[in-house]
Amino acid sequence: MTSLKTTRTDFESVWPSLVKDLQEAATKYNVPANALDWFTKSLEANTPGGKLNRGLSVPDTALQILKRPLSPDEVRGLSTLGWLIELLQAFFLVSDDIMDSSVTRRGQPCWYRQPKVGMIAINDAFMLESAIYLILKKHFRRHPAYIDFVELFHEVTWQTELGQLCDLITAPEDDVNLDNFSMDKYTFIVIYKTAYYSFYLPVALALMYMQLATPRNLQQAESILIPMGEYFQIQDDYLDAYGDPAHIGKIGTDIKDNKCGWLVNQALLIASPEQRKLLDENYGQKDDAREAKVKQLYKELELESRYQAYEEKRVSEIRQLIANVDESEGLRKEIFESFLGKIYKRSK
Amino acid sequence: MTSLKTTRTDFESVWPSLVKDLQEAATKYNVPANALDWFTKSLEANTPGGKLNRGLSVPDTALQILKRPLSPDEVRGLSTLGWLIELLQAFFLVSDDIMDSSVTRRGQPCWYRQPKVGMIAINDAFMLESAIYLILKKHFRRHPAYIDFVELFHEVTWQTELGQLCDLITAPEDDVNLDNFSMDKYTFIVIYKTAYYSFYLPVALALMYMQLATPRNLQQAESILIPMGEYFQIQDDYLDAYGDPAHIGKIGTDIKDNKCGWLVNQALLIASPEQRKLLDENYGQKDDAREAKVKQLYKELELESRYQAYEEKRVSEIRQLIANVDESEGLRKEIFESFLGKIYKRSK
Repeated sequence: MTSLKTTRTDFESVWPSLVKDLQEAATKYNVPANALDWFTKSLEANTPGGKLNRGLSVPDTALQILKRPLSPDEVRGLSTLGWLIELLQAFFLVSDDIMDSSVTRRGQPCWYRQPKVGMIAINDAFMLESAIYLILKKHFRRHPAYIDFVELFHEVTWQTELGQLCDLITAPEDDVNLDNFSMDKYTFIVIYKTAYYSFYLPVALALMYMQLATPRNLQQAESILIPMGEYFQIQDDYLDAYGDPAHIGKIGTDIKDNKCGWLVNQALLIASPEQRKLLDENYGQKDDAREAKVKQLYKELELESRYQAYEEKRVSEIRQLIANVDESEGLRKEIFESFLGKIYKRSK
Repeated sequence: MTSLKTTRTDFESVWPSLVKDLQEAATKYNVPANALDWFTKSLEANTPGGKLNRGLSVPDTALQILKRPLSPDEVRGLSTLGWLIELLQAFFLVSDDIMDSSVTRRGQPCWYRQPKVGMIAINDAFMLESAIYLILKKHFRRHPAYIDFVELFHEVTWQTELGQLCDLITAPEDDVNLDNFSMDKYTFIVIYKTAYYSFYLPVALALMYMQLATPRNLQQAESILIPMGEYFQIQDDYLDAYGDPAHIGKIGTDIKDNKCGWLVNQALLIASPEQRKLLDENYGQKDDAREAKVKQLYKELELESRYQAYEEKRVSEIRQLIANVDESEGLRKEIFESFLGKIYKRSK
């Protein structure tokens, strides 16, 4: 495996110029100063500040393929595409936080809960989405893959919205009904709501940037990265109940929040009628004692070792998929090994 | 002027096939049945059912240029583009209603107030926007103007969001401060929030469809349609206070809602210090007596005749612009005359 990696500093150094581009896209219409200030604050509050894993994956993917340091132009181009994923994520997070009535995000009050913002956050989310296409047009209009970039963002946005819709109507916080849950719905939600934009999108963008996005390469990337994204989300659900809060940086609330997660869906598969009754009565309630009962049931059902078994099986399947990658059109196994290396047995 | 017009029936007959296209864009991902049903309900509840003026303007513009009946293919293509404006409007209205805490829309409870919907409406609004690009890709991928259609929708969406942002932060319902208002901000809001998507967009789409979207034709269309859209919104503000509620179908609430409208901005231009004090104390309050005081002040300031004078002046300017249209690249004055004919001295 190559040791070439994009530094966070290189990646972050591109952001201020994108903010300037976006401000110019507003000032060219003589937007009043109060609106320009507001938009700038929303950009800065919602886009940087996360782990930036998705964005960094775009230049990192190119490094794995090229096996040499990137030119300054390549760093700028690939990091710009990476920032577009961070803008897409910002668009989703600002609106998800309203839809989920979340309280904090990245250690701060959620954007919609900040002073004077409220429901204006909905329009701010739209503007974060629009920023993607403003930047694509400004920086990639003459790139051979321009329309592919645009269509890819449209498609992944649509997929994520479908996943989000399914999640919202399957597990409403105020109407607990475990009959709504199923492993099929769970799998649909994690693949569409998370895997496409977090795992497939960065690699597809890098391939398009390098003009290596042949149908075969895209199809191979998807066939590995979607199962990998599914595994990542299942890990997330596992860590919500079994991770160390001090290490993860938050206390898991999936049980109280009636989340359609992997653990409850596994429990539903194997629960006896009495155990099912216990789940019906205690899942999705904002109550510590009821949450503890659900956790106790998870213990009886040995979900922790069930997860370990799932993880080993799934990771060996993914390793097999990676081993079978056809590199003849310029794809490299190292891309996927590097993704897997970042998530296998992670504890946060 | 030609009497060729698109019938509402022809236009509406295209809608069911677009719903089918959008359902297929979801079922190809094996979306669970509950999510497909939800999306279909949102499409049907939010897209048809309005006046459809914006959508109908697309085939109508083509008719004014071609001066012959449209072929079945042209009716379908141009009506499809018209429906995309209706989808864009649906995206805006669903979200605006949440941001404005509106109660009813088109005689029904607003979408977000319908049973079980709530904040899920935010994701539904996103999906209405995504629908635009799904349909563009399906129906116009091979059209020479495909990327122009896509970029035009992106740009007009961005413009509308800028206008909406300025409106939201200039006139928050819970913080009345008339110092925030100005005719400059007012003009920015109406042009960006309304004129681009309602007036310029349909004509630009029709020109692109017919491959007549030369820079000169687009620039001429914009230079007439934006002032026309501004006039249209000023009329709207006038009718809110002076129109016949029985005829308009709603009771105006701009004064109570602290709207940054044309009338209050005109009042601020000419008010004496005492009159300004009356405005400060009574504008933007949910109180009939205070609203009546503001209306009485409007009377003293003779805003109604001020509006009449504005209307005559602005319409004669627009007529002059239309008279000067250069038709050498295929643009036709009748397009603009027809738009103006629909709005001049309208009472609803």
